[in-house]
Amino acid sequence: MKKVVLALSGGMDSATLLGFLLSKGVEVHCCNFQYGSKHNAYEFHTFSHVFHFYLINGFRDKIDAHIFNLVNTFKSFDSDLLQSGGAIPEGHYEAESMKQTVVPGRNLIFASIMTGLAQSIGADTIALGVHAGDHHIYPDCRKDFIHSLNITINFATEEKVSVYAPFLDMNKADILKIGYNLTPQVPYQYTRTCYKNQSISCGKCGACQERLEAFKLLGKEDPIEYER
Amino acid sequence: MKKVVLALSGGMDSATLLGFLLSKGVEVHCCNFQYGSKHNAYEFHTFSHVFHFYLINGFRDKIDAHIFNLVNTFKSFDSDLLQSGGAIPEGHYEAESMKQTVVPGRNLIFASIMTGLAQSIGADTIALGVHAGDHHIYPDCRKDFIHSLNITINFATEEKVSVYAPFLDMNKADILKIGYNLTPQVPYQYTRTCYKNQSISCGKCGACQERLEAFKLLGKEDPIEYER
Repeated sequence: MKKVVLALSGGMDSATLLGFLLSKGVEVHCCNFQYGSKHNAYEFHTFSHVFHFYLINGFRDKIDAHIFNLVNTFKSFDSDLLQSGGAIPEGHYEAESMKQTVVPGRNLIFASIMTGLAQSIGADTIALGVHAGDHHIYPDCRKDFIHSLNITINFATEEKVSVYAPFLDMNKADILKIGYNLTPQVPYQYTRTCYKNQSISCGKCGACQERLEAFKLLGKEDPIEYER
Repeated sequence: MKKVVLALSGGMDSATLLGFLLSKGVEVHCCNFQYGSKHNAYEFHTFSHVFHFYLINGFRDKIDAHIFNLVNTFKSFDSDLLQSGGAIPEGHYEAESMKQTVVPGRNLIFASIMTGLAQSIGADTIALGVHAGDHHIYPDCRKDFIHSLNITINFATEEKVSVYAPFLDMNKADILKIGYNLTPQVPYQYTRTCYKNQSISCGKCGACQERLEAFKLLGKEDPIEYER
């Protein structure tokens, strides 16, 4: 693993994975996907902040950014997470209503594009920050899917590219713990997790709740601002 | 299999698969991907011709078209098939030089987007016209890949979507035979196979040569015009 293509949303999981990979001396090509989600504009903002943090903190020769505009690709897709969908449900991340926020095929599409990019630039790995907390709601974050995806990508690339998802068995608190122990610490003040279309995180949607619980579990204060 | 999402390039294989699916009474959602290949503009032309043929020949309630603009997604990908790449090699389809026409991750990306669309519109199947002639050069057309892709898509969609690739063990002559026996016959006069950036097919690139051999094997005359 020398050159890696990473899906970087600017959320705490992918930001931690970026810090983790850089700490191992790996060259990281960060991909951000604009796909028409309600929070895409804010996600892009946090992606830029996180990316820039590492750029100016010793890793300018080790990171690159690739932005993919998939807004039209997802325009007829059915999900409340998209601008075309209904309101984002509030409540716990694992509640049944959160299933409306599944975006069909999303991780498969992202991983496929990352695979094509990886092969084009000679990277041997695509890295995804999926974790155990995602498993209940999102089929394309589960272990069976990720393992099968790895085999499919191996076949597609004649074994030149593999999937790396080191957080697959961890929860968000485990991930935070890794990030706080890295040097430099992962800049959680620049990350954002909220699903809503607003600059200040709501603190009420499933994604915010899961994040807040992770900080609480670790006994840390979440450095970002919340509406509530 | 009631509602299917089909990758329709406008080549003879996918056109035959469209005719075959419609003959079975299936509702077919045809996807065309503009990804910056040298022949994309001409491919779009043939896609439209083939689609329109079925539209006016009794299937207007059974087909729909979805156009995906992926030109920017593929812009940094490395392949001679792309407008950004080198010249298209001439010679036999299976020659080593044809490997330069592999587009990294292409079928994986197309299938992933088709999966998201399928789930969004309630289709249970994505259909691909990949065939045995593609196996030597293109890893993302081989049986192992297609079978693995099917499992991965099953996991991604909680078994709501599967891959259908009925030509996987056939060559182009077998496919032509199916198309000529359908009612209506597949309109091969509207299809196009050439990899080059020109309106009249070159007859010299690997794709043209494979097509011409298939018609010859079947004892039919290819109804399209060639440069040579």
